[in-house]
Amino acid sequence: MKPKASIQGLAVYQPGKPLEEVKRELGLDEVIKLASNENPFGCSSEVWPALAEEKDHFHLYPEGTAPELREKLAEHLEADPRRIILGNGSDEIVQMIARAYLEPGAESVMADLTFPRYETAIRIEGGIPVKVPLKDGTHDLEAMAQAVTAKTRIVWVCNPNNPTGTIVSHGALSQFLDQLPEHVLVVVDEAYYEYVTDPSYPDSLSLLDYNPQIIILRTFSKIYGLAAFRVGYGIGHPDVINELNRVREPFNVNRLAQQAALAALKDQTFVTYCCNQNRLGIKKITNKLDEWGLHYFPAHGNFILFDTGFPANEAFDYLLRQGIIVRSGQALGFPTYIRVSVGTEEQNSRFLEAYALFLKEKGKIHANA
Amino acid sequence: MKPKASIQGLAVYQPGKPLEEVKRELGLDEVIKLASNENPFGCSSEVWPALAEEKDHFHLYPEGTAPELREKLAEHLEADPRRIILGNGSDEIVQMIARAYLEPGAESVMADLTFPRYETAIRIEGGIPVKVPLKDGTHDLEAMAQAVTAKTRIVWVCNPNNPTGTIVSHGALSQFLDQLPEHVLVVVDEAYYEYVTDPSYPDSLSLLDYNPQIIILRTFSKIYGLAAFRVGYGIGHPDVINELNRVREPFNVNRLAQQAALAALKDQTFVTYCCNQNRLGIKKITNKLDEWGLHYFPAHGNFILFDTGFPANEAFDYLLRQGIIVRSGQALGFPTYIRVSVGTEEQNSRFLEAYALFLKEKGKIHANA
Repeated sequence: MKPKASIQGLAVYQPGKPLEEVKRELGLDEVIKLASNENPFGCSSEVWPALAEEKDHFHLYPEGTAPELREKLAEHLEADPRRIILGNGSDEIVQMIARAYLEPGAESVMADLTFPRYETAIRIEGGIPVKVPLKDGTHDLEAMAQAVTAKTRIVWVCNPNNPTGTIVSHGALSQFLDQLPEHVLVVVDEAYYEYVTDPSYPDSLSLLDYNPQIIILRTFSKIYGLAAFRVGYGIGHPDVINELNRVREPFNVNRLAQQAALAALKDQTFVTYCCNQNRLGIKKITNKLDEWGLHYFPAHGNFILFDTGFPANEAFDYLLRQGIIVRSGQALGFPTYIRVSVGTEEQNSRFLEAYALFLKEKGKIHANA
Repeated sequence: MKPKASIQGLAVYQPGKPLEEVKRELGLDEVIKLASNENPFGCSSEVWPALAEEKDHFHLYPEGTAPELREKLAEHLEADPRRIILGNGSDEIVQMIARAYLEPGAESVMADLTFPRYETAIRIEGGIPVKVPLKDGTHDLEAMAQAVTAKTRIVWVCNPNNPTGTIVSHGALSQFLDQLPEHVLVVVDEAYYEYVTDPSYPDSLSLLDYNPQIIILRTFSKIYGLAAFRVGYGIGHPDVINELNRVREPFNVNRLAQQAALAALKDQTFVTYCCNQNRLGIKKITNKLDEWGLHYFPAHGNFILFDTGFPANEAFDYLLRQGIIVRSGQALGFPTYIRVSVGTEEQNSRFLEAYALFLKEKGKIHANA
């Protein structure tokens, strides 16, 4: 009854602390969670009414291939529906890609540091993660291209990168793709796509037309505010999508999740609102960080990774006791950094006030600053 | 960009035809689906109101380990919550087991024929399915024990077996477990557990106390009527559960699904009602099959596999044109059989009337029979 060698000792993923757990543990009623890059504005008001349409269908399996959702996504993206695959969150698409393309001993190139699920997915398949250090918190695409060998099967580009929030540009990504041998599949994870306003950000769908070897990941868990439902999607060449369908669970995306995503997709006004509010929040927080002289990475998603100048868990614990959950960089590979999700205006203010108190306690700013 | 060898040419799962698809294709308004062993009575009326509790939490990730649901399940089962793991349907637990325990070349023993997802899960991992023919439609546990070698990692026992509906008894399963070497994990898939009324059916939880090498699979997709939500669970030794958690997706069970399952679990009156109605439905249908002289397997779940005496697709197509979707045995390895799910009293009558018409057309019964 031994598990396979590749999973022995593999760590179980540690998610951001759930609200419910913190409330239970600290006996707090009011807790703000800025730990998992969830949408502080919730989701479109169209979602809840749409669920009622499924009220009499709870006993029925979902349509496994999510035909209606794929069709509407295809319209929205101006892409062929055969290029789209749905997942139980884009997490599951990460898993499907690794399961379909990695054999034991296969290499897979990723940034060091980036979203940790790539490495887990690689290791479970017995693959070898080849990690290329970030350069100023950004994917070093030149070094990544050089790390590709005949054994490389998958390259992961998280854009914006989690946890740094940095992006690679259209030009850089395009040049990178041109350099890669044909046997490599490039995963461009754009979970925070809708938050990015920088004009240099890749139009990755246009790159897909010329590069059948890329698959783009997007999600309804972030700006669409449907993390509870687990819906992510991949956009790639139909041949790649076909291979992923071989390892897809037949009913992987929940019936209500499909309905919720359809309703959310229609409400692009909500998406635009959230994007604008997010930029305002980033400005507000980074202005304060500038004032305090704390280093942070250019934040293109809905989160900011900044340097506390102390072991990260000190600020993490301080904020937690004040009912604010952030993500400690300790477990993210940035041992003095905090990753804070951008909240509502009020949440951002509460976070900044609490952080000012932390700085006072640390003697870094004056009591009346 | 080649996928790994083990998935090349692997077939994509063909589910029962969805209602929506048949309505679209045939332009029918009234369609009865008796193809996927879904609960014809829907689900507990407590489920929909319970979802409203999540209305303001759609943007929040679910708690990955489903602590509340595991606790309530543990109470219900009188088991330790550390023995329980939740999946995105029990399908996903099948996948997790294969992913955690199978390396390329590992053997896995299963019945021929049984639920096809075991074989898919084995093949994706590069494992070797060792198939042991059914004996009178029932798992041949003696032959399966003999098929176990030093390379065997997992043995699958689907009980009741899908698609035959037969069961193995407590005594037979217990004896089987005693014979197996310690390096083998035994998966006892009890998706239809709550439907079984036969007193010889295993009390598998009691077997688990003495056999740390079994893991029992159950689901909310069948009698609880929550197939739309995708919630299944495994009950096993905490060490086995720990290994599965290493390959579990962090947020695999949707937040609303956890809430729905909690509500459904409380309403055991609904479960008892469905079980009773199911037995009445089986009696009604098998009485007719007896009258028509058609062979069927002892039906312990909520479906009946019977021999049409013709290529199965003839009856399948005939019924489909009448707006009744069943499962053709063609793809299930029983080329002259139909698997029909037990419906409501009215659905069962409609199925039997339509089938009588088919028999008349075939000249097997008289027009006024």
